Amino acid sequence: MSNPSLLILPGDGIGPEVMAEVTRIIDWFGAKRGIAFDVSEDLVGGCAYDKHGTPLHDDTMAKALEVDAVLLGAVGGPKYDKLDFSVKPERGLLRLRKEMDLFSNLRPAQCFDALADFSSLKKDVVAGLDIMIVRELTSGVYFGEPRGIFKEGNERVGINTQRYTESEIARVARSAFELARKRNNKLCSMEKANVMESGILWRDVVTEVHEAEYSDVELTHMYADAGAMQLTRWPKQFDVIVTDNLFGDMLSDLAAMLTGSLGMLPSASLGAPTENGRPKALYEPVHGSAPDIAGQGKANPIACILSFAMALRYSFDMGDEATRVEKAVEAVLADGKRTADLLGEEGVTPVSTSEMGDAILAAL
Amino acid sequence: MSNPSLLILPGDGIGPEVMAEVTRIIDWFGAKRGIAFDVSEDLVGGCAYDKHGTPLHDDTMAKALEVDAVLLGAVGGPKYDKLDFSVKPERGLLRLRKEMDLFSNLRPAQCFDALADFSSLKKDVVAGLDIMIVRELTSGVYFGEPRGIFKEGNERVGINTQRYTESEIARVARSAFELARKRNNKLCSMEKANVMESGILWRDVVTEVHEAEYSDVELTHMYADAGAMQLTRWPKQFDVIVTDNLFGDMLSDLAAMLTGSLGMLPSASLGAPTENGRPKALYEPVHGSAPDIAGQGKANPIACILSFAMALRYSFDMGDEATRVEKAVEAVLADGKRTADLLGEEGVTPVSTSEMGDAILAAL
Ligand SMILES: CC(C)[C@H](C(=O)O)[C@@H](O)C(=O)O
Ligand SMILES: CC(C)[C@H](C(=O)O)[C@@H](O)C(=O)O
Repeated sequence: MSNPSLLILPGDGIGPEVMAEVTRIIDWFGAKRGIAFDVSEDLVGGCAYDKHGTPLHDDTMAKALEVDAVLLGAVGGPKYDKLDFSVKPERGLLRLRKEMDLFSNLRPAQCFDALADFSSLKKDVVAGLDIMIVRELTSGVYFGEPRGIFKEGNERVGINTQRYTESEIARVARSAFELARKRNNKLCSMEKANVMESGILWRDVVTEVHEAEYSDVELTHMYADAGAMQLTRWPKQFDVIVTDNLFGDMLSDLAAMLTGSLGMLPSASLGAPTENGRPKALYEPVHGSAPDIAGQGKANPIACILSFAMALRYSFDMGDEATRVEKAVEAVLADGKRTADLLGEEGVTPVSTSEMGDAILAAL
Repeated sequence: MSNPSLLILPGDGIGPEVMAEVTRIIDWFGAKRGIAFDVSEDLVGGCAYDKHGTPLHDDTMAKALEVDAVLLGAVGGPKYDKLDFSVKPERGLLRLRKEMDLFSNLRPAQCFDALADFSSLKKDVVAGLDIMIVRELTSGVYFGEPRGIFKEGNERVGINTQRYTESEIARVARSAFELARKRNNKLCSMEKANVMESGILWRDVVTEVHEAEYSDVELTHMYADAGAMQLTRWPKQFDVIVTDNLFGDMLSDLAAMLTGSLGMLPSASLGAPTENGRPKALYEPVHGSAPDIAGQGKANPIACILSFAMALRYSFDMGDEATRVEKAVEAVLADGKRTADLLGEEGVTPVSTSEMGDAILAAL
């Protein structure tokens, strides 16, 4: 049997430096645990545009479709702000999501005990928080047609289309119900069924899937605006949340920010299982490319490292190895090591990106 | 000259009880300040459906178009959840917004000193918070065509259309720039120009209006997901925010919840100035119909009362009288009077809806 294969796409900004620490951990698994990966590396985002004039070269896309999992750093930067929409760094990421058909985006919002003070929320509101947002990632207003800027009389008109089919909703609902079963058997679905027909269909299909296949899971529905409110007021009322692409974009960012530990949060984007049983999958930190601190050794590599842990769990069925990485991260935090984003408390030890990598390797 | 005219639409749930307190304040203005209004009252939402089979009768719509300002309580309730989309309580409200052409929805998020402890956020994050969200209210995905649930092969498909014309963006941008000039000369515009063409047009038009007419105002742009994060992290970085209908729905609810004083927050929905110089206008509390506590004298009437204060300011150019109402509310809070939603601190006096009305009248 050949080794599991990984495509690494460090991307822009702090992407390369945080990914460098992940690479060391991958090497450690090969050397110390006898778990070797076939690793290849390529470009995505602004750096791909600089080299190829496109944020994702066709060859890279082809490779992504071949490997068992893709690890992505981050894309984008002010340098690319003025580029045409069709070649912006984000298009590279969106193309990966779409062509790999990664419809289920898992975004844990977890508050690390050692870091609860970093939240802008009161400690009792967020301490111990552990929720999972499942965001539909390949459809909705991100991809619906017609779209564009058109001329109507002497006016420009900007158009995007929110569009969901029954099967698109059903498959992401199933993945959320499955997750709920592995957690606390509780799922909240969010949309705007009070103003959007696509929201009505969303609610109906989630309800149908629930009745037919998952009636053991407790299902509730909430309007997305109320969801934003309730996440802010008392996030611990939620366990798993399922929502569409655009609402998921906002709600998962909001949930991530609640924890105060943005530099800590990983994400997984999964497709349907392939022939070998593994889903197509892409793993990436929730944080962005942070161009303002890029190249200074200030970035926190933990979100990217925990994204690799998610890969171990969801792509390679190595839950124990994933836990090993997560425990190492916790140990290092408990030991007081902090990258620049997490300074401020008394008695902690400031470390650089690579020193954080050192510490996690040592803890492993 | 005839009296200024008001149409009162108490609506559903706690709407009627909070509006009853507003009516007493209107009467007080007639009796004590010689400022008389011609007041009429009518139905909207579920109660209108119960009586007429539609959430907004054509006669009510016609009246709303005639008066100088509409005051609305709240609409909706579980009783109406199963109604067909076209006659849901919300449709009444949406029809008012659309046919009155109320494109500019002002949603202040203000943290009242006496209530800062109610926020789920740390006190220093929200104390003194005073931001204004300007939400486009008559276009975007709330109203765009095509929309509906269609059959495609043997699948249902839910479709809504996000659609903005140049002039729709420009007029709400102008109203936000005008407001910024009256406040701290700072405006942040939010969209998802990185994934939606309608967001690109939004950003372009706001920038053009800025350059041509408001270059004295400091303008920034932010993606809406980052906006949700930044509002949560450090809301005081913002002063006036302008955004579209759907993003505005979520971001303004989020901002309102940050303050911890949801029962306190008013809103104004304004159109273009009419012949008499007054804009078409509708004023309503940010909170909903709260069916769970309706009819029990527990509701906080302050948001609705402050909505009337906004009417004094924005429709009738009576800024001093508006301030009089606002000061009365502050005095009552400083005095420790609290409705059920704001209990929990030591040393406060619990009051009912009407006792809160009594206290505010006394303070006037
Ligand atoms: C970078 C951008 C295209 C992306 C999105 O909007 O999906 C990001 O915000 C995210 O949430 O992954
Ligand atoms: C009641 C509903 C239709 C409405 C909206 O979505 O606009 C409400 O959430 C609001 O923000 O006023």
